[in-house]
Amino acid sequence: MRDASTSAHEPVTDTELGNLVAHWRAANYLAVGQIYLKGNPLLGEPLRPEHIKPRLLGHWGTSPGLNLVHTHLNRVVKARDQDALCVWGPGHGGPAVLANAWLEGSYSETYPDIGRDADGMARLFHQFSFPGGVPSHVAPETPGSIHEGGELGYSLSHAYGAAFDNPDLLVACVIGDGEAETGPLAASWHSNKFLDPVRDGAVLPILHLNGYKIANPTVLARVPEPELDDLLRGYGHEVLHVTGDEPYAVHRAMTEAMDTALDTIALIQRTARDGGVTERPRWPVIVLRTPKGWTGPSTVDGLPVEGTWRAHQVPLPAVRENPEHLRQLEAWLRSYRPEELFDHDGRPLPHVLACVPEGARRLGSNPRANGGLLLRDLPVPALEPYAVQVDRPGATLHEPTRVLGDLLESVMEATSERRDFRVVGPDETASNRLQALYGATGKAWQATVLPVDEHLDRHGRVMEILSEHTCQGWLEGYLLTGRHGLFSCYEAFVHIVDSMVNQHIKWLKVSRSLPWRRPIASLNYLLTSHVWRQDHNGFSHQDPGFVDHVLNKSPEVVRVYLPPDTNTLLSVAEHVLHSRDYVNVVVAGKQPCFDWLSLDEARAHCARGLGVWEWAGTEREGEEPDVVLACAGDVPTQEVLAAAQLIRHQLPQLALRVVNVVDLARLLPETEHPHGLSDSQYDALFTRDRPVIFAYHGYPWLIHRLAYRRAGHPNLHVHGYRESGTTTTPFDMVVRNNMDRYQLVMDVIDRVPGLAVRATRARQAMEDARLRHHTWIREHGTDLPEVADWTWQPETGGGDGPPR
Amino acid sequence: MRDASTSAHEPVTDTELGNLVAHWRAANYLAVGQIYLKGNPLLGEPLRPEHIKPRLLGHWGTSPGLNLVHTHLNRVVKARDQDALCVWGPGHGGPAVLANAWLEGSYSETYPDIGRDADGMARLFHQFSFPGGVPSHVAPETPGSIHEGGELGYSLSHAYGAAFDNPDLLVACVIGDGEAETGPLAASWHSNKFLDPVRDGAVLPILHLNGYKIANPTVLARVPEPELDDLLRGYGHEVLHVTGDEPYAVHRAMTEAMDTALDTIALIQRTARDGGVTERPRWPVIVLRTPKGWTGPSTVDGLPVEGTWRAHQVPLPAVRENPEHLRQLEAWLRSYRPEELFDHDGRPLPHVLACVPEGARRLGSNPRANGGLLLRDLPVPALEPYAVQVDRPGATLHEPTRVLGDLLESVMEATSERRDFRVVGPDETASNRLQALYGATGKAWQATVLPVDEHLDRHGRVMEILSEHTCQGWLEGYLLTGRHGLFSCYEAFVHIVDSMVNQHIKWLKVSRSLPWRRPIASLNYLLTSHVWRQDHNGFSHQDPGFVDHVLNKSPEVVRVYLPPDTNTLLSVAEHVLHSRDYVNVVVAGKQPCFDWLSLDEARAHCARGLGVWEWAGTEREGEEPDVVLACAGDVPTQEVLAAAQLIRHQLPQLALRVVNVVDLARLLPETEHPHGLSDSQYDALFTRDRPVIFAYHGYPWLIHRLAYRRAGHPNLHVHGYRESGTTTTPFDMVVRNNMDRYQLVMDVIDRVPGLAVRATRARQAMEDARLRHHTWIREHGTDLPEVADWTWQPETGGGDGPPR
Repeated sequence: MRDASTSAHEPVTDTELGNLVAHWRAANYLAVGQIYLKGNPLLGEPLRPEHIKPRLLGHWGTSPGLNLVHTHLNRVVKARDQDALCVWGPGHGGPAVLANAWLEGSYSETYPDIGRDADGMARLFHQFSFPGGVPSHVAPETPGSIHEGGELGYSLSHAYGAAFDNPDLLVACVIGDGEAETGPLAASWHSNKFLDPVRDGAVLPILHLNGYKIANPTVLARVPEPELDDLLRGYGHEVLHVTGDEPYAVHRAMTEAMDTALDTIALIQRTARDGGVTERPRWPVIVLRTPKGWTGPSTVDGLPVEGTWRAHQVPLPAVRENPEHLRQLEAWLRSYRPEELFDHDGRPLPHVLACVPEGARRLGSNPRANGGLLLRDLPVPALEPYAVQVDRPGATLHEPTRVLGDLLESVMEATSERRDFRVVGPDETASNRLQALYGATGKAWQATVLPVDEHLDRHGRVMEILSEHTCQGWLEGYLLTGRHGLFSCYEAFVHIVDSMVNQHIKWLKVSRSLPWRRPIASLNYLLTSHVWRQDHNGFSHQDPGFVDHVLNKSPEVVRVYLPPDTNTLLSVAEHVLHSRDYVNVVVAGKQPCFDWLSLDEARAHCARGLGVWEWAGTEREGEEPDVVLACAGDVPTQEVLAAAQLIRHQLPQLALRVVNVVDLARLLPETEHPHGLSDSQYDALFTRDRPVIFAYHGYPWLIHRLAYRRAGHPNLHVHGYRESGTTTTPFDMVVRNNMDRYQLVMDVIDRVPGLAVRATRARQAMEDARLRHHTWIREHGTDLPEVADWTWQPETGGGDGPPR
Repeated sequence: MRDASTSAHEPVTDTELGNLVAHWRAANYLAVGQIYLKGNPLLGEPLRPEHIKPRLLGHWGTSPGLNLVHTHLNRVVKARDQDALCVWGPGHGGPAVLANAWLEGSYSETYPDIGRDADGMARLFHQFSFPGGVPSHVAPETPGSIHEGGELGYSLSHAYGAAFDNPDLLVACVIGDGEAETGPLAASWHSNKFLDPVRDGAVLPILHLNGYKIANPTVLARVPEPELDDLLRGYGHEVLHVTGDEPYAVHRAMTEAMDTALDTIALIQRTARDGGVTERPRWPVIVLRTPKGWTGPSTVDGLPVEGTWRAHQVPLPAVRENPEHLRQLEAWLRSYRPEELFDHDGRPLPHVLACVPEGARRLGSNPRANGGLLLRDLPVPALEPYAVQVDRPGATLHEPTRVLGDLLESVMEATSERRDFRVVGPDETASNRLQALYGATGKAWQATVLPVDEHLDRHGRVMEILSEHTCQGWLEGYLLTGRHGLFSCYEAFVHIVDSMVNQHIKWLKVSRSLPWRRPIASLNYLLTSHVWRQDHNGFSHQDPGFVDHVLNKSPEVVRVYLPPDTNTLLSVAEHVLHSRDYVNVVVAGKQPCFDWLSLDEARAHCARGLGVWEWAGTEREGEEPDVVLACAGDVPTQEVLAAAQLIRHQLPQLALRVVNVVDLARLLPETEHPHGLSDSQYDALFTRDRPVIFAYHGYPWLIHRLAYRRAGHPNLHVHGYRESGTTTTPFDMVVRNNMDRYQLVMDVIDRVPGLAVRATRARQAMEDARLRHHTWIREHGTDLPEVADWTWQPETGGGDGPPR
């Protein structure tokens, strides 16, 4: 452990220290005011119950610690003209961050109706956690923030994401000792093995041990300090401690720790950038140990509060009813001596603001925390050189993600100077067949490299760590600070970040309603190694439910695409890489897949989002079809086309329409999603009264949930994944879930009125084929040759099926 | 770091060492055989392509390491007559664990058709990853396993869960260096602060650094060893290293490390149990550093394989087509000298089995890994003393979870000797108002305790850590080894374990199909602090989607309950605590809630799962109602009853039926879920053609997804949470999402044919009330008095609404 006091920088003077403490007192005062006061903000008169809000909401416990950190970040940012952000892990401490934004003036610039004066202070207090006002947590509404913090766990990965490819940026990150117990946070400490001291900025973690969560002591506050030091050194850090409860002493120690940390960071960066040193550095971490609810009521109703879990939210809960609580609140507020901090008009006095930086250096005004301000369009090349040649449908096979990899390589290449595009994935980039990327960049890696390793690169922009949480957090931080990216993931395991994507969607939803927040690049998922082709890994790897999860969320934010082949994947990728403020889920296979559409056809199809594939059907111009076969997803599309071909041969008189769906939200009513079809559009595709047999990539009921309002819904029959899986063959997966071509044909026969009797022979042929399949795989362990070698036959066959 | 060689135990003799290596060679041979061979299992003839499986599936890379660990666990278990389990984190190494189970005879006892002879060996090989055979991963089908390992992250928390309240048990846990990068695993190292050396067993983590994941080096294998030691010491462990690639040397070092570890564990337990020492011990951890794919092909097609990521799955991919690969495979298999390991009939020779323990001591036969064998019924007391008195509906209020807490206290008390019941939660047990539990037990805690702390207890059975992942993993491990428990969680943040519950449901689904796996206690969630009452924390805390997530999964496993009041919660709790092999999701509020049903009524209602609340409606006997108001969840029930009361007053002639749903799966067709209603049952409750206005706790489309097949579905109109939230008042939350009483009444007016015109005045009154609400909350910050003070008025009012 390095002793913070031994660094070479100048110590602060007593005056400077006094000003820092004054700023902190002012922030504490403003935090308490937000929790309690609806009037009398400057305590111009004795506090009365009518000055108190009717519902007391907010979190005091963490606020004095956050205020301390903000005060001291102000100091070093100003002194060093340092470009800096802070990620506030204990984001429930909204009052603290709002207080600081107001003090530095960022708040009033963002929200002119909340001026930096007595009236503005009154509004600042009144609006907090009040209907129509601002949320109790740090939120998109908070200037300077890229992190909500309500769920806990993602602060440090967000901080690293912000720092990547921002070489001049310092990202401070306050980690609460509660949050430090979460899995995502615990994993993200190792992000420092991926931070390039040359091309990336710095992350300064500040582990705030205030000792308690809601109701319990925290683990890291209750292990011996040498054990904690071991842990942080084991994470690769150099540890600086700031401990105490005497304000001046803690403030002085904090100035020293901050200076030491920033000096160390500067030295590391200089050594790497100028000296070419490639050894992984030991970045500093500050351990700040101060009481929870510090400077708040020591005891309430005879029980200890300051320094305990009881300080977590509202330490004095009954201020309106209990005169003693009211008296304590007034004493608490007056303990900050507001008259020394604000003038009569409520304006902060100059010495209070002495540590506050100017303009865009203020933490609440840094444009990087409003990434859309800095965002540049991504240079996605024209698709033509990457598209596969398709002369007729189904004549060739390609691996869609492998071709996408070529496109992404070009994007990576085109951003090699700008460095504003990254691809993240949990050790699956090559498994997902995107390895062409390594032609343009390597995999970020700062740890030891052995001669046998491939593609590891100190400056790489492919990011692989076996933690979906860390990948997601990195990418979110990267996007929120104005850059672009893609997350490639096994479909089943993206559920690991269900709750993280929830929070990001919520963030985007609220951000879209704030004019000052500029649109950022969408969060793009490529989900591959999907449910139908995890036949080798088995049941644990088979889950298509992320689409369902995402579609529960705000329709203005979420988009789901299921490109059925290579060129449609390229077209979808082009679209999502250019889009803003969405969460785009793209589900696509990595296994060889028939090419159905040329690039032009793919573009037109993707632009519509769904459409009839005339070449695959047998309907006659101007007549309604007898039945619609619909599909969404690559494997369902193949099964539907195989079924269409069987029908063409077996039931040649049947008028069949094939509809393919790429953009799933098109199935929703237009009132429910911006992409939703009108009823007449829907009916024109799916008919109002003909049977629709739908083969869908995921859980079949999702299609019903999307289409239940449609006129034709009673005739809609969906096949999909029904949670039946294991290690088996690819075709057996569709058979097990009743989505195979034979089952689809049988369903057509059963659903088309009057057909079942006449198509007895055809139906029997389908049942025989399924039986043959079962026998064959048990014996051979592979799929039936007629399935494995199947190809689409474009010519209209005469067929030998029963006449209609 | 403690040097493994300094311990006092006897070193193994050369003969013993030779036998250990022979066992390991045999296991390696059997692992390779499973991946490759469908015939010629003993290599009685030269290997030919037709002996090779058509599809080569499986993971070789981790297998030799798992085989090494199993061999050495065998030794110490036998030598010490140690009750032991092993959790195989790299569960993709199925071939290894199956090989060991077959060698020790557990496999043939579980599956008599796979004998421990040549024929059995052939079947063991053939069935692996073959259609109709066994999955490629460790799975429920694997004797001795409680852990699948496909998703990675949960091995260590499972191991701790197994060890809690099993004082004589050793749970070894192999953690791959890939898995070690995940968040859940990283968090779970701190489980040792919750392991009681007196009442719990021991966990021995074995961190296996084979250096690579699928395509990348691992972080922990590439930090300097002193840094890794710091990390593990920082986690609170004493580190033992075993490193090498020379088999005899590694085996010898492993015997020494295992003996040292087990001696240390024994000493810790003796010191705590006999000596009464309460200082938190430093438990041992073994760091095992061996090459990935050790003993496999060194190079293939000119590229290094052994010791690299290329050994991850099938090192020789083209054995059937490429004679050189076939040659290499034969040389590889013969390198284990099978003729020295198996007799001519394929039976393992005695020296191979010299280290294998007997009977239930075998890792594949320990009954704790088949927890249902040991499970005892939970002593849930009669509900009567806990139930609240309900003389008439809606006359009193209780906090449902607080009353449940009293019941749980009794269960905790009744199990104080048996110690087979635990409650886990992420720092929210008291916040969720279950603190009555502390009357019977405390919170498990082995770290430092301060005088101000409350309810911390070295032997406590309430488990709180701010990691939903760790809570879930602990509970799964506890249940899988034959005990009972409950997970209480904020509703929004249970999404953090979406992927974990997926895997547990998959495990249960498969287990239910295996007769030898005995039913275990259900995994019970109490989801509270729910979406409607996170008005103080705001949008980040508002998400009811876990129910949707769970209902996608196997219907034979999942159950969802939404008790509308205190007594129904008690009745549901009684049911789920007695149930087996389910995942039960119970959503219930902690805020004061009207009591609607007496205990007897609650029991009857919960037994039906849903039903008409006659006392709340106005329909006339023998006639169909004009409209049905349905509800599921506590807040929706309150809004529906308030709407019913408004209708009774405003529209007295309207025949209204109120239906409350507790068991959500009742809405599904009986063909889709064991709890599903037949169509006639459904129609009898909801009618076939009358408007049904449904207020649902979560996303409204879930109800459509459940009920879309019903005749009355076109008349079903669902109100629920539509992702609109913030920090506001409780009633504003329902207004924002159009689920408030006024909106429900308006919907009734709009939907009942012919009513809209006649009910103009009533409709206007509803709109006025909503307007009043909006104005009031902005001014007062609290809910309208008519809402805040609303109570159910049972007497039938004359009403002043327009006549019908």
